[in-house]
Amino acid sequence: MSEMTRVVLDAMGGDNAPQAPVQAAVDAIRARTDIKVILVGQEEVVREELSKYEYPKEQIELVDAPEVIEMAEPPVLAIRRKKQSSIVVGLGLVKNGETDAFVSAGSTGAVLVGGQTIVGKIRGIQRAPLAPLIPTETGVSLLIDCGANVDARAEHLVQFAKMGSIYMKDVVGVKNPRVAIVNIGAEEEKGNALVKATLPLLKECTDINFVGCIESRDIPRGGADVIVCEAFVGNVILKLYEGLSSTLIGVIKQGLMSTLKSKIGAALALPALKKTIKSFDATEYGGAPLLGLNGLVVKTHGSAKAKEITNSIFQCVTFNQENINGKIKENIKDSQEEE
Amino acid sequence: MSEMTRVVLDAMGGDNAPQAPVQAAVDAIRARTDIKVILVGQEEVVREELSKYEYPKEQIELVDAPEVIEMAEPPVLAIRRKKQSSIVVGLGLVKNGETDAFVSAGSTGAVLVGGQTIVGKIRGIQRAPLAPLIPTETGVSLLIDCGANVDARAEHLVQFAKMGSIYMKDVVGVKNPRVAIVNIGAEEEKGNALVKATLPLLKECTDINFVGCIESRDIPRGGADVIVCEAFVGNVILKLYEGLSSTLIGVIKQGLMSTLKSKIGAALALPALKKTIKSFDATEYGGAPLLGLNGLVVKTHGSAKAKEITNSIFQCVTFNQENINGKIKENIKDSQEEE
Repeated sequence: MSEMTRVVLDAMGGDNAPQAPVQAAVDAIRARTDIKVILVGQEEVVREELSKYEYPKEQIELVDAPEVIEMAEPPVLAIRRKKQSSIVVGLGLVKNGETDAFVSAGSTGAVLVGGQTIVGKIRGIQRAPLAPLIPTETGVSLLIDCGANVDARAEHLVQFAKMGSIYMKDVVGVKNPRVAIVNIGAEEEKGNALVKATLPLLKECTDINFVGCIESRDIPRGGADVIVCEAFVGNVILKLYEGLSSTLIGVIKQGLMSTLKSKIGAALALPALKKTIKSFDATEYGGAPLLGLNGLVVKTHGSAKAKEITNSIFQCVTFNQENINGKIKENIKDSQEEE
Repeated sequence: MSEMTRVVLDAMGGDNAPQAPVQAAVDAIRARTDIKVILVGQEEVVREELSKYEYPKEQIELVDAPEVIEMAEPPVLAIRRKKQSSIVVGLGLVKNGETDAFVSAGSTGAVLVGGQTIVGKIRGIQRAPLAPLIPTETGVSLLIDCGANVDARAEHLVQFAKMGSIYMKDVVGVKNPRVAIVNIGAEEEKGNALVKATLPLLKECTDINFVGCIESRDIPRGGADVIVCEAFVGNVILKLYEGLSSTLIGVIKQGLMSTLKSKIGAALALPALKKTIKSFDATEYGGAPLLGLNGLVVKTHGSAKAKEITNSIFQCVTFNQENINGKIKENIKDSQEEE
């Protein structure tokens, strides 16, 4: 039997809590015997939701957390004040080493701040980047960093590139992942001060497959597997990706519904169309990992349904079994010795 | 009769030269009597192309420019060395005050560098931003700056906001345009150092309708009319817009062609769909103006067809008739007096 992975799940986080996280926990343990899920939240609420299901009792545990951090709360303050919230209690279980990972659909800010301050960074890691997978024509790419720590320095981006490469290879399963840095032209003389400072450092890295600069127009067609950028740019890319996809699909639906003839056409074409559009949906791959911490922290969409959360739990298992943090530590040690 | 606008057109620029620019010139003067087009390029080549058309001769003039700047040439070097190129000769005609505007589908870098060094900036303007119109669900928005001058300062962004607002109001015809700055959250405590420095300055501006921060996800739905950002971020937004639209439309076409049933549906739906997708196409509005220069410089897509170039010529006429540069100068003077 393979090693048991212990995943803490925020039962109160996201638009669909507690239903979606509780269902996700049950689905995950029904599918695999090597997972234990620790549901953290208001005990009575979670217990009642859980009572709707039949499941192997020894694989789910409940931990009480009477407080809830709301989406709109200022993150730093919320983490500091709500010690009994599902996010603070849940992250505490990872810090203590009692569990391997924490998954939440709750406040992104609170998860980011809590991850860094409660779980803490791996020794030698300067920043913990948030690295969502985004859909492309050919699969998915890892966009690293989309977090809240803006104004990064070149050495931060180099660490992002290395951690992203390890994740893409060993969790997502891409062989020899192509690593690129976001720039405003393929030519190296272009770019801002940060890109110009980072480029020579990335070229020196022998442990990643660095392929150079990528323009944002080439991201959707799958131009690289690991897309390195600082958090402001990453956030702009991620949110434009979501916004533009949704607007364009809306515009196309409107077009399909605009005439009687097109409506008949739409009815015939819809099943095939839905399938294709679904392939352009990254939630299949689970949530965004916050990398470089002493334990895995995964943030799913606030609107995550059970399936995305279940996939995030599986993602934690792969992360644990592939010993990603061990590999990151090894990599950081090597880099420091080289210096 | 209204004032004549004299537009210099690069007959050698872009993928479809000289056919597209020459046709665009003829279409423009056939449509309006208040335009004179000065075609700049290799005289023999342009004359031969022009001989295919019947048109009012007094409205088109030819100026010889034997050299051509290629797309891949380093811009600064190309502008310095190829004094007899269509871009350098054409921009020279604007600098001398002999003409009002210059339109080119040629090398973006060369047009940007040439615009700033040959035509020169309006006194008091610190940077000349490139400001393309991007399509949204409700119309178009002006994205300012998408140029090559990265690492901007707060006072640059304030000037972009003001120039963009004037352009959107008097050239595009949007009443009281909503001006927003790109940020990674609607909350003001979020953002990088540049956004945090710019926000208070924008709030103090009484001559624009500043509505606060915009997240990139809200750009496609038309969240603001003038989208202010520094050039690196603007370039990422612009190119991702183009890349993602094209990939998504490709994915949808693939979906429509995937089964026999969907193919029949697609055939029925296609005309309506094409019309809707076309409404999401900014080329209808002409090219991207390089603002803040002593004369208008407009960069169209490298792949521009005659229609986009003709629209760019009309754009120059509106710019001239609405005295946009006079308004920018007035605004800059007022700002300096306020200080």
